[in-house]
Amino acid sequence: MPFRQPHLLGIEPLHPQEIATLLDLADTYAERNRKGLPGGDALQGLTQVNMFFEPSTRTQSSFELAGRKLGADVMNMGVAASSVKKGETLIDTALTLNAMRPDLLVVRHPQSGAVDLLSQKVQNCAVLNAGDGRHEHPTQALLDALTIRRAKGRLHRLSIAICGDIAHSRVARSNILLLHKMENRIRLVAPPTLMPPGIDAFGCEVFHDMEEGLKGVDVVMMLRLQKERMDGGFVPSEREYFHRYGLDAEKLAHAAPDAIVMHPGPMNRGVEIDGTLADDINRSVIQTQVEMGVAVRMAAMDLLAQNLRAARGRAALGEA
Amino acid sequence: MPFRQPHLLGIEPLHPQEIATLLDLADTYAERNRKGLPGGDALQGLTQVNMFFEPSTRTQSSFELAGRKLGADVMNMGVAASSVKKGETLIDTALTLNAMRPDLLVVRHPQSGAVDLLSQKVQNCAVLNAGDGRHEHPTQALLDALTIRRAKGRLHRLSIAICGDIAHSRVARSNILLLHKMENRIRLVAPPTLMPPGIDAFGCEVFHDMEEGLKGVDVVMMLRLQKERMDGGFVPSEREYFHRYGLDAEKLAHAAPDAIVMHPGPMNRGVEIDGTLADDINRSVIQTQVEMGVAVRMAAMDLLAQNLRAARGRAALGEA
Amino acid sequence: MPFRQPHLLGIEPLHPQEIATLLDLADTYAERNRKGLPGGDALQGLTQVNMFFEPSTRTQSSFELAGRKLGADVMNMGVAASSVKKGETLIDTALTLNAMRPDLLVVRHPQSGAVDLLSQKVQNCAVLNAGDGRHEHPTQALLDALTIRRAKGRLHRLSIAICGDIAHSRVARSNILLLHKMENRIRLVAPPTLMPPGIDAFGCEVFHDMEEGLKGVDVVMMLRLQKERMDGGFVPSEREYFHRYGLDAEKLAHAAPDAIVMHPGPMNRGVEIDGTLADDINRSVIQTQVEMGVAVRMAAMDLLAQNLRAARGRAALGEA
Repeated sequence: MPFRQPHLLGIEPLHPQEIATLLDLADTYAERNRKGLPGGDALQGLTQVNMFFEPSTRTQSSFELAGRKLGADVMNMGVAASSVKKGETLIDTALTLNAMRPDLLVVRHPQSGAVDLLSQKVQNCAVLNAGDGRHEHPTQALLDALTIRRAKGRLHRLSIAICGDIAHSRVARSNILLLHKMENRIRLVAPPTLMPPGIDAFGCEVFHDMEEGLKGVDVVMMLRLQKERMDGGFVPSEREYFHRYGLDAEKLAHAAPDAIVMHPGPMNRGVEIDGTLADDINRSVIQTQVEMGVAVRMAAMDLLAQNLRAARGRAALGEA
Repeated sequence: MPFRQPHLLGIEPLHPQEIATLLDLADTYAERNRKGLPGGDALQGLTQVNMFFEPSTRTQSSFELAGRKLGADVMNMGVAASSVKKGETLIDTALTLNAMRPDLLVVRHPQSGAVDLLSQKVQNCAVLNAGDGRHEHPTQALLDALTIRRAKGRLHRLSIAICGDIAHSRVARSNILLLHKMENRIRLVAPPTLMPPGIDAFGCEVFHDMEEGLKGVDVVMMLRLQKERMDGGFVPSEREYFHRYGLDAEKLAHAAPDAIVMHPGPMNRGVEIDGTLADDINRSVIQTQVEMGVAVRMAAMDLLAQNLRAARGRAALGEA
Repeated sequence: MPFRQPHLLGIEPLHPQEIATLLDLADTYAERNRKGLPGGDALQGLTQVNMFFEPSTRTQSSFELAGRKLGADVMNMGVAASSVKKGETLIDTALTLNAMRPDLLVVRHPQSGAVDLLSQKVQNCAVLNAGDGRHEHPTQALLDALTIRRAKGRLHRLSIAICGDIAHSRVARSNILLLHKMENRIRLVAPPTLMPPGIDAFGCEVFHDMEEGLKGVDVVMMLRLQKERMDGGFVPSEREYFHRYGLDAEKLAHAAPDAIVMHPGPMNRGVEIDGTLADDINRSVIQTQVEMGVAVRMAAMDLLAQNLRAARGRAALGEA
């Protein structure tokens, strides 16, 4: 089944077969990258604009590298925090962008839904969500999925624990959506204060104890503690948090013997995860996640560019 | 008449025929951009350095995109405000630049005259003023002119109202110079406190009332309220300002029935202009202004590069 | 003798013959740059990442321009100061970088030794030190050496005075190492408070008086006063400092009649050096230093890329 989307705004609108198509293509890009082969010319002649209303060196660099490997002209539009004022600015941003006619637009924004809104206002351009508020971060979920598929040989009927600050995490949200679509069993492990209300609606099992939560799982996915998003709410002490919810060898011993350890980065070592465990290449696939990030973004932009070119071709025929 | 300038420092030194030559070329670039055609290779092998001593995502992106579309190697030299110290630093900047041998240098600077000074210190390089203090912002005036010419079919004998914070605006200054050269009738509409002293010297009609000032005009050009430049002076309340000088449908009704609405952006919606009116594609050409910005900058850099190459050719012959 | 290093971490590990090899190649690049010829394709297909944990527009631009002139794909990874936390972050940075597979990595870091540590953690990538704490800044010493060699016709048996804030200067340290290897006589001239303890170990002559220190020298190398690194220590008054240690025509008269004046920039005019003297093209080679910076960085990256490709070739054969 082909990938039919005009944009990549989240995992929610994707069909499981579209996810598989994207991961298959990303797999071939990952192999090319490993061998040091050139990426190709899928984005030759196209302009990719990275517009980050929230700074993120890692994610922006990954998108930039992915675009360049495929021949895109990449422009980073740094957006000073001071110039961001509620909804209105987004409309003016769209005006500016339409006039500049980018082909691919990668957006990170601190407000949930802002990237969707922007995608409705820009014309003739594929939009990729690089994280919007607490809503979605689809390329992170896709790179996690590819990492799991490569480590485990499959992406279904796995038992996966997502642990930590689930309440503030768009990474958790996109991962839950994706892993559900692929028919995995998901366990959420977090203190009650970091568990979003109404979480059972997702059909996940909920745990407040790490040892119980990790029992027999194939994948342990740790989350970053999002202190910067805990406005006014409960902020746990780091030592206490590590003691109860930080991943170390002892807690990991409750998972399956071949369980893998994941973290979206950047890590708070000694808070969410023990540093030695994070660096243990027999258990941790954290470096592979970053590597798959470039491959997944190459695949996503390649597929969106194909759809964009097809749409433009149809429009040109319609005009003729 | 050919475009003879070695630099684009302002509108003041340009002959009306040079302006027409530049706009004609920009028009063909605008058409190519609309059709999604490549820009060409006018700047192939040349290095364009964007040096912004004052941040401006929009203008810098527009110059960057223009340069890339013509094949230039574009480098952004972010200049931290802290490293900017009066005149001396400019000389050292020129030393650095000369050693790096850029071909095109795009400069924005908070001090009037700083770009002229820099152009005298750099060697073998075409300088473009991207806005200096309250002095000039020539590419803004040129993109406004192209927008008017495309909307009205001509750029002379029009009645044009420039409204708002004229005292602090280099955009106003460059526009007044350009529109006078092209023999238009200019009306300035602003409260007395935002009108620069000795403004009649420009040969403009002055109004302090919007309804009177807009009567029958073909073009309504709104300005941004430059609060950041009102050091110690009068700062109007936004509500009061919008009531008296903000453009809305009611005030616009006094202009010609087919009058167009312009704004250089970024807009303070609800202060200088009503948001609905700004988005009304039957009256507002604000998005076209941004689009013409890329085309005008392509044309300006193309013409300057031609002159630069000719000067280098003559120098090489002289040496031989 | 070929240049055998896998990285350029400092001057200390280099053999004098390796330095000469690098400078010879830089010389040919300098000539190509002067004539406006393209740099070549030594870095074609390679990705250069500039990672500056400490901002420096000048050095970063110089590396970026050097990489682009040789065909590299250059990415600037701005690293927000806030995200830098002691040693741990460096390891995670290396994880990220390994996954992104750059070929050349240019690093500036506020901590001495940080670039060495990073070079041990990244795989399959040549690392260039663009300045680490008070430790080394090798490309600065190499560009200074090339400037001297071109001005004086040789790089040995010269009498060279290094003057000013030696205690806080990695530039001084790298220059002392390089000029010693090439068998020059070095004089250090500074107030006792700006002279590092145990400096005689370097085998330099130490002076606290400029007129004495400059007597008959061929080269006067001024240093920038590093106020930002003088944490808690003695900060001299600028006027007093200029009077005693700032270079002016009067003090320079004690040097050899054809002595050249150098400064690594950015200058504090009127503090370390008189502005008129800095601009006097008969004595000052400061602009040449910046120019040689691009050439030296081209040569360094060219040589490192050759070694990298050779190592990869050997690895590929080993695997086969």
